[in-house]
Amino acid sequence: MSDNVSIQTDHESIVELKGHLKSIALIQHAATILSWDQETHMPASGGDVRAEALGELAGIAHGRAQDPKLGESIERAEEFAHSSGDEKIIALVREVRLDHERSLKIPVEHATETAEVSSPAVQAWQAARENDDFPAFAPLLQKQIELESRAAEYLREDEVCIYDVLMNKYERGMTSEFFSDICRQVVPGLKGIIDRVVARALPAPDFFKGPWDKDKQLQFSRDVATQIGYDFSRGALDLTAHPFCTSPASPVDVRITTRVYEENFTSNLYGVIHEAGHAMYEQGFDPEWMHTPLCDAISLGIHESQSRFWENDIGRTESFWNHFLPQMKTYFPRVLEGVSANDMALAVNPVNPSLIRVDADEVTYGLHIALRFELEQALISGDLSVSDLPGAWNQKMQEYLGVTPESDKNGVLQDIHWSMGAFGYFPTYLLGSLYSAQFFEAISESIDIHKDVSAGEFGGIFDWLQERVHRPGRQYVPLDLLERAVGKGLDPAIFIDHLDRKVKAIHGV
Amino acid sequence: MSDNVSIQTDHESIVELKGHLKSIALIQHAATILSWDQETHMPASGGDVRAEALGELAGIAHGRAQDPKLGESIERAEEFAHSSGDEKIIALVREVRLDHERSLKIPVEHATETAEVSSPAVQAWQAARENDDFPAFAPLLQKQIELESRAAEYLREDEVCIYDVLMNKYERGMTSEFFSDICRQVVPGLKGIIDRVVARALPAPDFFKGPWDKDKQLQFSRDVATQIGYDFSRGALDLTAHPFCTSPASPVDVRITTRVYEENFTSNLYGVIHEAGHAMYEQGFDPEWMHTPLCDAISLGIHESQSRFWENDIGRTESFWNHFLPQMKTYFPRVLEGVSANDMALAVNPVNPSLIRVDADEVTYGLHIALRFELEQALISGDLSVSDLPGAWNQKMQEYLGVTPESDKNGVLQDIHWSMGAFGYFPTYLLGSLYSAQFFEAISESIDIHKDVSAGEFGGIFDWLQERVHRPGRQYVPLDLLERAVGKGLDPAIFIDHLDRKVKAIHGV
Repeated sequence: MSDNVSIQTDHESIVELKGHLKSIALIQHAATILSWDQETHMPASGGDVRAEALGELAGIAHGRAQDPKLGESIERAEEFAHSSGDEKIIALVREVRLDHERSLKIPVEHATETAEVSSPAVQAWQAARENDDFPAFAPLLQKQIELESRAAEYLREDEVCIYDVLMNKYERGMTSEFFSDICRQVVPGLKGIIDRVVARALPAPDFFKGPWDKDKQLQFSRDVATQIGYDFSRGALDLTAHPFCTSPASPVDVRITTRVYEENFTSNLYGVIHEAGHAMYEQGFDPEWMHTPLCDAISLGIHESQSRFWENDIGRTESFWNHFLPQMKTYFPRVLEGVSANDMALAVNPVNPSLIRVDADEVTYGLHIALRFELEQALISGDLSVSDLPGAWNQKMQEYLGVTPESDKNGVLQDIHWSMGAFGYFPTYLLGSLYSAQFFEAISESIDIHKDVSAGEFGGIFDWLQERVHRPGRQYVPLDLLERAVGKGLDPAIFIDHLDRKVKAIHGV
Repeated sequence: MSDNVSIQTDHESIVELKGHLKSIALIQHAATILSWDQETHMPASGGDVRAEALGELAGIAHGRAQDPKLGESIERAEEFAHSSGDEKIIALVREVRLDHERSLKIPVEHATETAEVSSPAVQAWQAARENDDFPAFAPLLQKQIELESRAAEYLREDEVCIYDVLMNKYERGMTSEFFSDICRQVVPGLKGIIDRVVARALPAPDFFKGPWDKDKQLQFSRDVATQIGYDFSRGALDLTAHPFCTSPASPVDVRITTRVYEENFTSNLYGVIHEAGHAMYEQGFDPEWMHTPLCDAISLGIHESQSRFWENDIGRTESFWNHFLPQMKTYFPRVLEGVSANDMALAVNPVNPSLIRVDADEVTYGLHIALRFELEQALISGDLSVSDLPGAWNQKMQEYLGVTPESDKNGVLQDIHWSMGAFGYFPTYLLGSLYSAQFFEAISESIDIHKDVSAGEFGGIFDWLQERVHRPGRQYVPLDLLERAVGKGLDPAIFIDHLDRKVKAIHGV
């Protein structure tokens, strides 16, 4: 079998195709490093040149993705793929064809303009948020809506609505109808849990305030990431205002960032675990297929499932603290004196409706997504104007979470996504939680997860995910990948039950 | 006059030319960031992809530099330049023409191959140095000699020897004959000073051993760099194994790196001052001419003159310590108790022939360069084979410095330059010292440097350099720039006299 695979990948049509893809990937590699540098080290005065350079690289990559020679190469590879009958090769040419045809539909000028608008729009959003001045950001938000709508017009087929086209950029096969259905089941489920727990909410325990020495926090979170399976020899950990994972070259260069506060260890620790989850996904791709869709993420929802799995389903459990609390006590012996794994599990699993999505707990989080999903659909369809957005936001916050922001800073201006032109992205966060819950339940059929985690044994869980979720890259579309991995389709009830059981175990209600 | 300048730069032929140059500069910007990332944050496993991406970008930039449309644009700009009579514009088109013709002579394949070989060759050198295994590095050194010789063959005109062509890549107008003359004057001059001082050498004073807290060192060296004029709002300071300055986008993004040891503050402090000197040069270019040769360094010798000026001629003086010692004492009150500015000046100006160039003092440094100049000339001419290089190195070390390395690690393998294919580069270090001494003497005619520095007044010195050295960019070739700035040609005697006076003032002999 392995001989056979090696013959397939050596076929001249595949070698040629890989060459074309690599010439695109190398430019994207450069763009990724430039973006990463922009977030981590670039002085602000370098922003204009950076925006232009990113536009230039996007134009080159897009031009190469449209190259008719690539089209011919794909045709030859398709012929071979179907004669070979090899599943992986068939998936490869299917995905390459898809990318090529999508890029043919987008004019180079549009790709360049989109890349060039991104930096100024993000900068305008940052300034607007700082000054609590939504009107200053409004024109650039309008510009992003127009650019993305135009992109969707280029891409759309048949009767598909614009918003669904955008959603599909991030989550293949997802539709607003399907996602609305999900929300209709998830929202009442979450509200039910919230109502039950909030009434009995306890304040954060005293030890929680620290102080937590920053260097020690960073050492501990590095220890945790290493033990759960993030490979630092193919990665790096840097400090940024907002944590993220970036993959200049999967699987050999996949980096994460974090932030660290003295009065709160969870932001750093769970940020690192979350980003390490993303990074383990990208580090798990097959290096043989580097620079091709088989060495690339199939969707942001699947991506997010990996970060949430490690952060919430593993990291925020008593089992996790059974193993890691003794290690953490060596760094913070005084602060953690007398603290138990159960104390920790309770403290890191609050349920408390609040204003800010990124600070939201696991239960209320989904409500933040439902709200954004509705608002961005309305923005894209034109049912909601940019100037009416802040009011609509505040109204929905009250409706879903029972709180109203006192300023746009803590309301409509809190997220970077729309400033980057990322509409249809938010739903993938909730989908990530749904996938993650289903992976957890499926793994539980063969592995006693809590026993393994309590013992610091992460290998069985890691291997399960590597084989079924990471390794395929884009071989299967998200819902197929899920079905193959867990033997079931996407089912919000599994997520709600899973969460319900977790909350009962920790909070006793 | 300023109206007139603005009309010139708005001429359509200049706008068009700037557009072409920008499209090249943006690619070089990306390549610079990739190289910087490679040194600072990239995991080693990302090295192969990085090498290929740098090769790809070099190929694109080179292709654009060869574009016949650029050639036509240059012709139109030349016509305008000569009719305008504007000196700056004439210099601009002269330099652009030069770059274009040089790039036309180098085939794209050669540029790509050169960029691709660089990373593996540097990696092989690093491994060879670590294992003290010169033969493991020899084949890649041979490859670099061949590639650079071939490049020189493409570029050479008339009877110019290959080595001189290479030298001119770094220092316009320099020849091996001229530099040999310089060495003939400098070498005995330095040896004379060494013989006088070494006989009376004192061991390093006790306080010198520290300990020097790393964070405090970094804070202090930041303070110093800021006060002498490095603009952190257009820069960044990072940690690397070897300090360097890099300019992703002069003058708006110019970064430096440093290293820091607890037992020795000079490596960090003088490294930062040195690199800040380089960076102030690049930050001093005229932003109006960004992406063009008028916003670019004219030569490495002039570049090095700026780092050496601030490191040696300002930083290693008693005047410097008159101003900065009280500030340093706020960081290290105990270690520096009772230490005077004179103690410091004496301690940071040792004279001591030793094995390693980068650790060499200001006086013995030039001898390390003379040795490398002779050896690389012989390597390029073929008079010396790669296999005979280590022996020749050791013999010359004994001859020039009276010491013999006990291993190639501390001998022929100590420098990165040849692994990068940089032959003809070393002479620019010594030229930097010569230029710097002449700038110092010329500034002294209008400014009492020691009085200003003792008072922490760096503005007058900074402005002198900005106007005469930084601002022109590539408007004047190095020897013209020098002549305009100081009213004299290059004269090694001025350097030797300058150094001689400094050593007498500090060491009393």
